[in-house]
Amino acid sequence: MRTDRSRIRRLPHRGLYDAKNVYAILDCGYLAHVGFHLGVQPFVIPTLYGRRGEKLYLHGSAASRMMRHLEQGVPVCMTVTLVDGIVLARTAFNHAMNYRSVVLFGQARKIQEETSKRDALRIISEHLLPGRWDDVRAPKAKELKATSVLELVIDEASAKVRTGSPIDDEEDYDFPVWAGVIPIISEMKEPLPDPRLRKEQPIPQYVQTFIAKSKTINGSEAI
Amino acid sequence: MRTDRSRIRRLPHRGLYDAKNVYAILDCGYLAHVGFHLGVQPFVIPTLYGRRGEKLYLHGSAASRMMRHLEQGVPVCMTVTLVDGIVLARTAFNHAMNYRSVVLFGQARKIQEETSKRDALRIISEHLLPGRWDDVRAPKAKELKATSVLELVIDEASAKVRTGSPIDDEEDYDFPVWAGVIPIISEMKEPLPDPRLRKEQPIPQYVQTFIAKSKTINGSEAI
Repeated sequence: MRTDRSRIRRLPHRGLYDAKNVYAILDCGYLAHVGFHLGVQPFVIPTLYGRRGEKLYLHGSAASRMMRHLEQGVPVCMTVTLVDGIVLARTAFNHAMNYRSVVLFGQARKIQEETSKRDALRIISEHLLPGRWDDVRAPKAKELKATSVLELVIDEASAKVRTGSPIDDEEDYDFPVWAGVIPIISEMKEPLPDPRLRKEQPIPQYVQTFIAKSKTINGSEAI
Repeated sequence: MRTDRSRIRRLPHRGLYDAKNVYAILDCGYLAHVGFHLGVQPFVIPTLYGRRGEKLYLHGSAASRMMRHLEQGVPVCMTVTLVDGIVLARTAFNHAMNYRSVVLFGQARKIQEETSKRDALRIISEHLLPGRWDDVRAPKAKELKATSVLELVIDEASAKVRTGSPIDDEEDYDFPVWAGVIPIISEMKEPLPDPRLRKEQPIPQYVQTFIAKSKTINGSEAI
């Protein structure tokens, strides 16, 4: 997957090019920032996604400017960034973030056929919250029509990862300041029931599992 | 700040255009996704930032492709997204995210003068972790030279915010499934000291304050 376009130019020791690492990071994340060019202007829009193999799925309102533009097959850049910690060094210059990120390039196409569209929406839903799709009322034909679903084939991708402690210059290790890492976790909290929820409706097991898992995921374990 | 470029086309009731809301979201976040066009390809790169008034500051290696490109004053889109929760509705179609996001447009210029460069780096550092800058060894001339610092004047910006419970169609409220919101917090955890830290070095008060604050911030309070 490595070409000049996706080659990491800075800090090449942080660059990872194999699909296994790229997919591991994509599968840990759920929020992408999608970049495209419209007129003379770049746009960066946050969106959810799902993955099956080397294909990614995005969805949105059928009337959205982004969806209508992307479905024309224009060049797309999609970036997923997971922040794992703030790295406090002894010098301002050596401060850093621990993170995992993927920058990928491709083109999108619109999924027209209804069964494939339902499949792709299920992939996006299950990517975010496994178990939810089968538990809710499925999309009606009218809702499917109001939704645009895109398939993005990954042409190229590269991952960048930083883990671990600060790296200071040898002469700075005696500088009298605390140094280390402040870990950051994107943590799910106790669910808030909808005020209109019927009282006897329990929190599903898959929601409890999902919340518990968010508290234990550690960036360095994922790679 | 509202023009056709930044106008929210979908869900206009979620769009906020005044500077107060835009700044409140920018000040709650620390990670931006910066979009620009290079050759025939859009790029989206994660980066830290700081803000003073309507100016944003970005930094990076003086040799980085992104910095060298942006300093030419090309059109830039910068997006900051804070995810506050997953909104579980009774129907697949009505699922949503609670979030706050800012999409902004501008052009960058390189800061050449040394005092202004130090000022801007301090703004970026204090934006991420207030109190840190004065506690560490300041940048040397050689380090400043290896760092490129950009000032991005915000030309246009718009904020989007979703808060609260799912909104289902009236006929779906009886569907027998749990519905509500799973809150998400980007939470800082107990700091991990650098293995080479001198034993007597305590964790600074500003780090403890910063970690405590991350556990209490609530998306809906910020707007």
